[in-house]
Amino acid sequence: MKRIALLTSGGDCPGMNAAIRSVVRTALSLNLEVYGIEQGYKGLIENKLIKMDSKSVANIIQRGGTILRSARSETFKTVEGQQMAVNVLKENKIDGLIVIGGDGSLTGAKKLYDDFKINVVGLPGSIDNDIYGTDMAIGVDTALNTILKCIDTINDTASSHDRTFLIEVMGRNCGYLALMSAIAGGAEAVMIPEVAYDIEGIIKKIKKRYEEGKTRSVIVVAEGVGSAYDFGKVFGMIGGFDTRITVLGHIQRGGSPTVFDRILATRLGTAAVEALMEGKSGVMMGLQKTRIEAVPFDEVLGNKKLIDKKLLEIAEVLSR
Amino acid sequence: MKRIALLTSGGDCPGMNAAIRSVVRTALSLNLEVYGIEQGYKGLIENKLIKMDSKSVANIIQRGGTILRSARSETFKTVEGQQMAVNVLKENKIDGLIVIGGDGSLTGAKKLYDDFKINVVGLPGSIDNDIYGTDMAIGVDTALNTILKCIDTINDTASSHDRTFLIEVMGRNCGYLALMSAIAGGAEAVMIPEVAYDIEGIIKKIKKRYEEGKTRSVIVVAEGVGSAYDFGKVFGMIGGFDTRITVLGHIQRGGSPTVFDRILATRLGTAAVEALMEGKSGVMMGLQKTRIEAVPFDEVLGNKKLIDKKLLEIAEVLSR
Amino acid sequence: MKRIALLTSGGDCPGMNAAIRSVVRTALSLNLEVYGIEQGYKGLIENKLIKMDSKSVANIIQRGGTILRSARSETFKTVEGQQMAVNVLKENKIDGLIVIGGDGSLTGAKKLYDDFKINVVGLPGSIDNDIYGTDMAIGVDTALNTILKCIDTINDTASSHDRTFLIEVMGRNCGYLALMSAIAGGAEAVMIPEVAYDIEGIIKKIKKRYEEGKTRSVIVVAEGVGSAYDFGKVFGMIGGFDTRITVLGHIQRGGSPTVFDRILATRLGTAAVEALMEGKSGVMMGLQKTRIEAVPFDEVLGNKKLIDKKLLEIAEVLSR
Amino acid sequence: MKRIALLTSGGDCPGMNAAIRSVVRTALSLNLEVYGIEQGYKGLIENKLIKMDSKSVANIIQRGGTILRSARSETFKTVEGQQMAVNVLKENKIDGLIVIGGDGSLTGAKKLYDDFKINVVGLPGSIDNDIYGTDMAIGVDTALNTILKCIDTINDTASSHDRTFLIEVMGRNCGYLALMSAIAGGAEAVMIPEVAYDIEGIIKKIKKRYEEGKTRSVIVVAEGVGSAYDFGKVFGMIGGFDTRITVLGHIQRGGSPTVFDRILATRLGTAAVEALMEGKSGVMMGLQKTRIEAVPFDEVLGNKKLIDKKLLEIAEVLSR
Repeated sequence: MKRIALLTSGGDCPGMNAAIRSVVRTALSLNLEVYGIEQGYKGLIENKLIKMDSKSVANIIQRGGTILRSARSETFKTVEGQQMAVNVLKENKIDGLIVIGGDGSLTGAKKLYDDFKINVVGLPGSIDNDIYGTDMAIGVDTALNTILKCIDTINDTASSHDRTFLIEVMGRNCGYLALMSAIAGGAEAVMIPEVAYDIEGIIKKIKKRYEEGKTRSVIVVAEGVGSAYDFGKVFGMIGGFDTRITVLGHIQRGGSPTVFDRILATRLGTAAVEALMEGKSGVMMGLQKTRIEAVPFDEVLGNKKLIDKKLLEIAEVLSR
Repeated sequence: MKRIALLTSGGDCPGMNAAIRSVVRTALSLNLEVYGIEQGYKGLIENKLIKMDSKSVANIIQRGGTILRSARSETFKTVEGQQMAVNVLKENKIDGLIVIGGDGSLTGAKKLYDDFKINVVGLPGSIDNDIYGTDMAIGVDTALNTILKCIDTINDTASSHDRTFLIEVMGRNCGYLALMSAIAGGAEAVMIPEVAYDIEGIIKKIKKRYEEGKTRSVIVVAEGVGSAYDFGKVFGMIGGFDTRITVLGHIQRGGSPTVFDRILATRLGTAAVEALMEGKSGVMMGLQKTRIEAVPFDEVLGNKKLIDKKLLEIAEVLSR
Repeated sequence: MKRIALLTSGGDCPGMNAAIRSVVRTALSLNLEVYGIEQGYKGLIENKLIKMDSKSVANIIQRGGTILRSARSETFKTVEGQQMAVNVLKENKIDGLIVIGGDGSLTGAKKLYDDFKINVVGLPGSIDNDIYGTDMAIGVDTALNTILKCIDTINDTASSHDRTFLIEVMGRNCGYLALMSAIAGGAEAVMIPEVAYDIEGIIKKIKKRYEEGKTRSVIVVAEGVGSAYDFGKVFGMIGGFDTRITVLGHIQRGGSPTVFDRILATRLGTAAVEALMEGKSGVMMGLQKTRIEAVPFDEVLGNKKLIDKKLLEIAEVLSR
Repeated sequence: MKRIALLTSGGDCPGMNAAIRSVVRTALSLNLEVYGIEQGYKGLIENKLIKMDSKSVANIIQRGGTILRSARSETFKTVEGQQMAVNVLKENKIDGLIVIGGDGSLTGAKKLYDDFKINVVGLPGSIDNDIYGTDMAIGVDTALNTILKCIDTINDTASSHDRTFLIEVMGRNCGYLALMSAIAGGAEAVMIPEVAYDIEGIIKKIKKRYEEGKTRSVIVVAEGVGSAYDFGKVFGMIGGFDTRITVLGHIQRGGSPTVFDRILATRLGTAAVEALMEGKSGVMMGLQKTRIEAVPFDEVLGNKKLIDKKLLEIAEVLSR
């Protein structure tokens, strides 16, 4: 192992830069050469490799997004595209590749490992927290805190009127962001894809609250359940509530990473380089409890992460 | 003048609590009795008056929203409703009333003054900054900074992809929030109700940016111009851009007030009490340059605030 | 178990209110009566018990500090004082007590359990993260993020001058806050009580940085090592650096709790009530990996938490 | 006027980058060449000029500090040093110079104008707000909001204990930051250089508060009055209060600039270029009420800015 490369792929998330910094400086400390690949697999195919030194990653740990940028690549989804990527890696004498991204990016990494025998180690980067094999992915904690700040902010105005607020949050098919931010934000209800929703029940609960003199209601809706606008109309029509909608959108992907995300990304970055040095490949480094472990791609991509039932229960009990 | 009352009305805004605190403590220092009216004109009609002391307003200066709460009242829009409000004021021997709110609330205050000879002083509270007679209304600076933080956050992720972001901000028929946040956020384009928009021109500009290797575009859309969703479809279809939408919604009304808003609200609150003591009535206290001045309701409600043309020009020049 | 009480004691920390809310609402859902004791053990001796309902804890999850307030009590350190506290608990027919606080507070709880057979369950609340038996105490994550924001802020100005910045952070005899914030903030050096410091080495490293054209140096100093002012003089005299000092002080105790702290406090609060219901006593509920476990007071108070050596190494490698 | 240069000098402040961006892009739009001078007058003497284009200032408006960096120069204080600076300007055919900084920096600018007939326009950049001729300097609003967030944060913990908190803020000989942040933060007392302080009076007031059951006291101390540590000892000894100290230090210089600072810096930057184009020189562009005006250096440096007495009175009345 003399020369490694790394790329960020798919949706960006806060902490990617901390991971890049950690990979680069750990590699340098082990006398490896490190190349950054711009714009993910697209840039790999286009041979966009840049040699990185210690200064390339100075003053980036606090910045959201990814200095290597990201992009989607239809070409890479084809065997021809993958072969092109492999050729670029070989031309540049890259002995090991580190891929930071979500499920789609790791699926690409698995292809390179399974079909082309490339040494690849993956790192989980996704605000959705839907990646199996890691308790938390890079970016989740920051996204949660960003959502929470928005809920807190809406609380101010919600408490001044008798109004119902619907906040649509990201997460694709995963309700983690919605559930956790609802608990932390003290929301009155949460709608997530993992659990069948009960509009009537929510409306009943909110009506009861207003009758008890409570002055506001906040409902967090995971995007995987449907559009907050559509639900807003329903709550307005059936419940008769004065309902307001907020769609946070890509605000959730940005922001300076939290301590948790910077430390997690830093530990994962170090572990990824060490894993390559130890001859590991075809694995994602994941946080399991308090340790960083190597998890085979097959396991990561063949399982679905589940929601903690106890937290659902807590959300219900505490919002009464 | 022995006993005064105050209410907050219409959409709430950050800094209303700072104004309430200032009114109450200034009044107490002048040996006046002060009553807070809950839920605006609706609460006034319903006789929801609470006697305030120094402790009633302790530890509220930093909080968004309004501890007196706000509400809409259809009843108060009728002469009968206004008469009911006047009766409550007389029963409670209120010598002077302070109303904090936007255009609608001040229109109500003017009614009480014009038609019922009530001593009323208004304070401009509205994040839209559409109230004539004050350079800045209470809440505008906080709302702007909230929007700015969102734009900055989106910048992180925007810079990691070649994407176009549309951010819809509040302001009703006024483009102030959109224009100022676009300049401060370094947005590539801004669409406001005061100026005819040029979709073709914006698309051309963004295309040129991408050709020059600039990696992101942020467009701020004032809600008064139309829905960001609709424009998003247009930019996607005509421009062929990968476009993402954020609708900030009521996040813009919340948050802990900035220094500017707390100081402005504090000065206005003090000035309102002093104005009542000096026998002034039928006026709104406004910030004019660096001074607090009394502006007759007629003037406030009979004029339309204009956008600073120089700032429009700066927005255009600096975003090239 | 029919009636329980809870108190917060020692230094306050963000998340205490989330724990209080969780204890109260969980208890109510199990048909228990709940009393809040004001001002910790001092208030207990003085019989300051307040009956809590669901509304008592509405809208507090986002607030720093503790609505039950805290205080030091010399009286409670004596057997007589403890007997007085026990008498108050018995008079009020309290069947179980929940104590939220740090080492000192838990030592008090152990006294009540060991010597007076009171049913007590403790919760770890301390920004220092020096409590054995829980991976994280309530408040640590928020304190870390507060420190991080300050380091990031100083970074702006540090990068504009060739200056060395010393930032003194809390933690008593524990270097956790300093170490984690140094890694997350990308600090050039960190001084913690667990490791002998090497002033000469730090000075050498910083000089090398300046020679390489790097423009700023940030050193995080744990308060347990000594005063940043004293070290500042040393760095100025020996190193010849233009050195600036920041002492964060109690800023580190405040602020709205992060998602992590709100969720942790919520889970711990629920677990504490459930533990009392199951007849557990003399234990602290702690986060162990991803689970909440009951840990006997003897174990909590008889062991010292250690710093993760791997993180120290990472801090060193990445700051080169 | 074909070629201009700009530098930032003295203590950096948030908004300097927004001013740099505005100067550069305005100049480019007028077909001027623009050079950035690194490290202030020191860099000018050392001929550190860099040609700037539109991309040089992309994505900097949100960043604190100054991308041109700052430094102190003893050499420039001598006539020889000034002559060297002038030679560099002439060699590089610079027709106009823009200097962003505080009193010291503007004094240097005046030298170049008075003694060497260089075309110079100054911009007020200083968090202290001690520059005569501008209502607000660049950076003041951001610094105030940073201080305010710290006061708000301390409030959380202060309200949980019966404690007195002293917060030392910047401002050199000017009490503006202390006074404004004290009003906005609802502090119980403020000590500024412009007014003789009355320790006995403050102690009396705080004692009265505690007797009335108010639970916390926050005192803001301007650095120009003395050290918070020293006053802390006095309050502890004479008042018998449990007193805690925070010294914010350079946190006050950092942070992403607020909307106000970005707009102010943007307007000033544009105005400075336009002033040079109109043949103005030896002036500082300042905010006067709502307009940007040119103020001769003599006037700027020959007068002392005064504190608004009305605000002092308000601070006193509202903190009772």
